[in-house]
Amino acid sequence: MAEKYKLTYFNAKGFAEPIRLIFANAGVQYEDNRIEREDWPTLKNTFPWGQLPVLQFGDKTLSQSNTICRFLGRKFNLTGSNDWEAARVDELADALSDFRKEVEKIFGESAEKDEVKKAELTANFLSNISPLFFGNLESSIAKNGDSPYLVGKNLTWIDLQVAHSLDLFDTIMPNMVGAFPKLRKLKDTVYKIPQIAEWIEKRPKTNF
Amino acid sequence: MAEKYKLTYFNAKGFAEPIRLIFANAGVQYEDNRIEREDWPTLKNTFPWGQLPVLQFGDKTLSQSNTICRFLGRKFNLTGSNDWEAARVDELADALSDFRKEVEKIFGESAEKDEVKKAELTANFLSNISPLFFGNLESSIAKNGDSPYLVGKNLTWIDLQVAHSLDLFDTIMPNMVGAFPKLRKLKDTVYKIPQIAEWIEKRPKTNF
Ligand SMILES: N[C@@H](CCC(=O)N[C@@H](CS)C(=O)NCC(=O)O)C(=O)O
Ligand SMILES: N[C@@H](CCC(=O)N[C@@H](CS)C(=O)NCC(=O)O)C(=O)O
Repeated sequence: MAEKYKLTYFNAKGFAEPIRLIFANAGVQYEDNRIEREDWPTLKNTFPWGQLPVLQFGDKTLSQSNTICRFLGRKFNLTGSNDWEAARVDELADALSDFRKEVEKIFGESAEKDEVKKAELTANFLSNISPLFFGNLESSIAKNGDSPYLVGKNLTWIDLQVAHSLDLFDTIMPNMVGAFPKLRKLKDTVYKIPQIAEWIEKRPKTNF
Repeated sequence: MAEKYKLTYFNAKGFAEPIRLIFANAGVQYEDNRIEREDWPTLKNTFPWGQLPVLQFGDKTLSQSNTICRFLGRKFNLTGSNDWEAARVDELADALSDFRKEVEKIFGESAEKDEVKKAELTANFLSNISPLFFGNLESSIAKNGDSPYLVGKNLTWIDLQVAHSLDLFDTIMPNMVGAFPKLRKLKDTVYKIPQIAEWIEKRPKTNF
């Protein structure tokens, strides 16, 4: 019997979209449960950590976006071909989470308010943090020879996370990703997978 | 042939100590390479992400503390007894990372400087974030019946991470952990494992 999965998040791409891309890629049906912001205060305490995304199936509840991606990735064959590749995927996912936190310091709601500090953070971000991060992703792809993917010869869940994040990064720092041709090709490759393309076509249109 | 592992970090417990506890618990020899702060500026660029800890063995280099714990945990039988338990371990590790970030906003070098904001953050931390976090760990243990561990019947790498973190949390918020008897027992249980006790006895004495 196939599991019946329910994924709960806000009506946004955000931290849930890589999980939705995993389901789309695997061709697996699930309930794409989207909570309205105004309903959140009453619902928040019904989730173990008071945060989303949350995956439920049977009597099980799993939180944390990277954890959910890894768990489903293992089920649907997206964790590389051995433990070392699985670890490389994990490393890139943790690095992406760290990088996203740096992005949030500059862009977004919780960005630094002090203009002088923000200018400093931005300068360091643009000249150090960001080139190091994207450069490492680019060279990670380069190591795989003809493969367009980040780890090994096949698609893994970090490819879906990165492709989705590049969409966002392209919006907030339009010139950055352009300097990394293999990353751009990765995004194209992922978005051309027929089941992914189909999902992107039909998914609810949201800004983030 | 056994792998020859080299773990590089600063001369501190910090993000490397759970990895050292994994090695100690498994009785596996490794090089415990500790970099002096004054040597870091010249060494920083020799590491892929310019950050530590880093694990090296053979021609392989792995970054990110959680990723390293998971990778070694898998080798040394510390990831639970099935994929679901492995996912529960991952969830708790990600939650601990999130919680540590909340702690850093209040304690430590990068804490909020504005006194009014800091008082607000602290109030929310003490009445919401912290009880939720520790309460979830406590009930995670409670689910396992007689087992003193966080996930399932056996020791996993999240037990080592949490036991180590409780040491730190006991220092900076002394009354918090005391309210959670199963957590306190977890820490005692872990620190009484003979190989762990032996390591703690002989490890370099550092403040953090
Ligand atoms: N580390 C968590 C972070 C989850 C998180 O920050 N969720 C946000 C939305 S993106 C949330 O639930 N915010 C509402 C709240 O905290 O009340 C993950 O990766 O899943
Ligand atoms: N997410 C990373 C964080 C690593 C990290 O922040 N490392 C700090 C020490 S705890 C570091 O290398 N700092 C020196 C620097 O950034 O130059 C992990 O869990 O390994």
